[in-house]
Amino acid sequence: MGEEQREVVHRLLRDADFDLGGDVLAQRPRLERLLTAHPLPEDVRTSTGELGGVPVVFAELVGTRALGTLLHLHGGGFALGSAGGSIGLASSLARSAGLDVVAVEYRLAPENPYPAAVEDVVAAYRALLDREGSAANVVVSGESAGGNLALELLLAVRDEGLARPAAAVLFSPMTDLTVSGESFRTKAAVDPNITAAAIRTRIADYLDGTGVDPADPGVSPVFADLTGLPPLLVQAGSSEVLLDDATRLAVRAAADDVPVVLDVVPGVPHVFQAFAAVLEEGAEALHRAGRFVRGHLAAAAVDSVEV
Amino acid sequence: MGEEQREVVHRLLRDADFDLGGDVLAQRPRLERLLTAHPLPEDVRTSTGELGGVPVVFAELVGTRALGTLLHLHGGGFALGSAGGSIGLASSLARSAGLDVVAVEYRLAPENPYPAAVEDVVAAYRALLDREGSAANVVVSGESAGGNLALELLLAVRDEGLARPAAAVLFSPMTDLTVSGESFRTKAAVDPNITAAAIRTRIADYLDGTGVDPADPGVSPVFADLTGLPPLLVQAGSSEVLLDDATRLAVRAAADDVPVVLDVVPGVPHVFQAFAAVLEEGAEALHRAGRFVRGHLAAAAVDSVEV
Repeated sequence: MGEEQREVVHRLLRDADFDLGGDVLAQRPRLERLLTAHPLPEDVRTSTGELGGVPVVFAELVGTRALGTLLHLHGGGFALGSAGGSIGLASSLARSAGLDVVAVEYRLAPENPYPAAVEDVVAAYRALLDREGSAANVVVSGESAGGNLALELLLAVRDEGLARPAAAVLFSPMTDLTVSGESFRTKAAVDPNITAAAIRTRIADYLDGTGVDPADPGVSPVFADLTGLPPLLVQAGSSEVLLDDATRLAVRAAADDVPVVLDVVPGVPHVFQAFAAVLEEGAEALHRAGRFVRGHLAAAAVDSVEV
Repeated sequence: MGEEQREVVHRLLRDADFDLGGDVLAQRPRLERLLTAHPLPEDVRTSTGELGGVPVVFAELVGTRALGTLLHLHGGGFALGSAGGSIGLASSLARSAGLDVVAVEYRLAPENPYPAAVEDVVAAYRALLDREGSAANVVVSGESAGGNLALELLLAVRDEGLARPAAAVLFSPMTDLTVSGESFRTKAAVDPNITAAAIRTRIADYLDGTGVDPADPGVSPVFADLTGLPPLLVQAGSSEVLLDDATRLAVRAAADDVPVVLDVVPGVPHVFQAFAAVLEEGAEALHRAGRFVRGHLAAAAVDSVEV
């Protein structure tokens, strides 16, 4: 059963008309259609607004008691994707964790290269802290390029001395913009839809003309000193070329004394949690992510009381 | 509070008269005293016996409904430690997971170098399968050198076509007998009781005179093809020189399509779960390990029914 489900998802991704490395203007609407092909579950109520001057999408789960807020950063290689398109995945995690959602509509490349997206995400986080009055019930999540932005947010939070969130959940994060992971080669034949070439195209959108080295820790968190980051959950599939971006990030975090759980699921593709409705492994991974978050929300609450 | 507890454990280990790299005849009783300093909890009933001709210690948890059996492999660098001395840790994991315990009294080096210990462990596993009639409710665990033996058991199970256990839990496993992990250098100052020199002494006991290369996958599972292994949970502390043995094993497993969770806890030493009675991080890690095991026992039971 698991194998059949995986084959359906792989075929869906291989046959989709979406190309991560294609022309941004052509691909943006295609990715949006792919992400919003299914209506949101009935318990998800969304609205749009702004936080710190940055457009956001709020999502509430009717019937779920929210213990805090999930600040979610969508994927799409810094150049594609949208906050609205990520609500399906973000609300699934939020339901499992017991949270409300704020998905950030950060500025996209190539129109707005680095550091526009990071600035937007940090501005939204600052405003969220002001609104919540505390970071103890704030959790950060990100998928793919959004995982990169989540990590850069956490580094900024540390470096600027802001209150840090209770935890962060990273789905298949892009952590190395030099594209040096061995899995770009070893997993090329089994990854249904992501290639090193596509990733390079999107990185060029994000960095070209900025003079920033792709190995700079400000854009490649795998090369950063991660000391002082909050607890991280890193999930990835073993059938994705970005696998090593995830595993090396976790190894770096462990070496830097960050509480970290790396959770790799065999035979599934990039951000497989987005297919939870038809893929058991996705639903189970979201369940584990929810449990991870709830454990750290409780711990953060105890810490706040003790302070 | 967490920091005070960690300091107590670090001091205890630094000040203990036990030296992992010392003379085996002098150190064996010292390690035994360290491991049995506290009486076992009242719910633990032990007895001795044999499985497949190999001496074992059985432990049952009175009042816990056993869903299966934990085959536990103790640590001690292949040359020290005992099944009896490991019952405290093994029964804590078993209580959390809902299992009975069989701890294997495998033959120790240097009197019995490689492959004596692996042979004993495989023989005990075969006999356990015969006794249980199925592997669906068998879980393997190991600490330190016992983690190495657990992995070699799993490779033998795969290669000999035996029924594989539902899952395996590895506490700070020794996976690389070439002692090449960077953490031997980067964590030397913070590890309270383990050194590369001590590890090398014990590896010499295990391999000298056998003609076996320390890089052989038969003794260093980090260099093995791990394809086909059951779900692995790898836990380690960030204050141990063996950290990279754990992280690299997890990365290897992920690349080889093995379901794997790497769980690194900052600031705690080698096999910190053994200090769960006085170290919150240890108790929490055992709780997570128990949950991991129960999830896979349920999955294995469903698979057996489906076959």
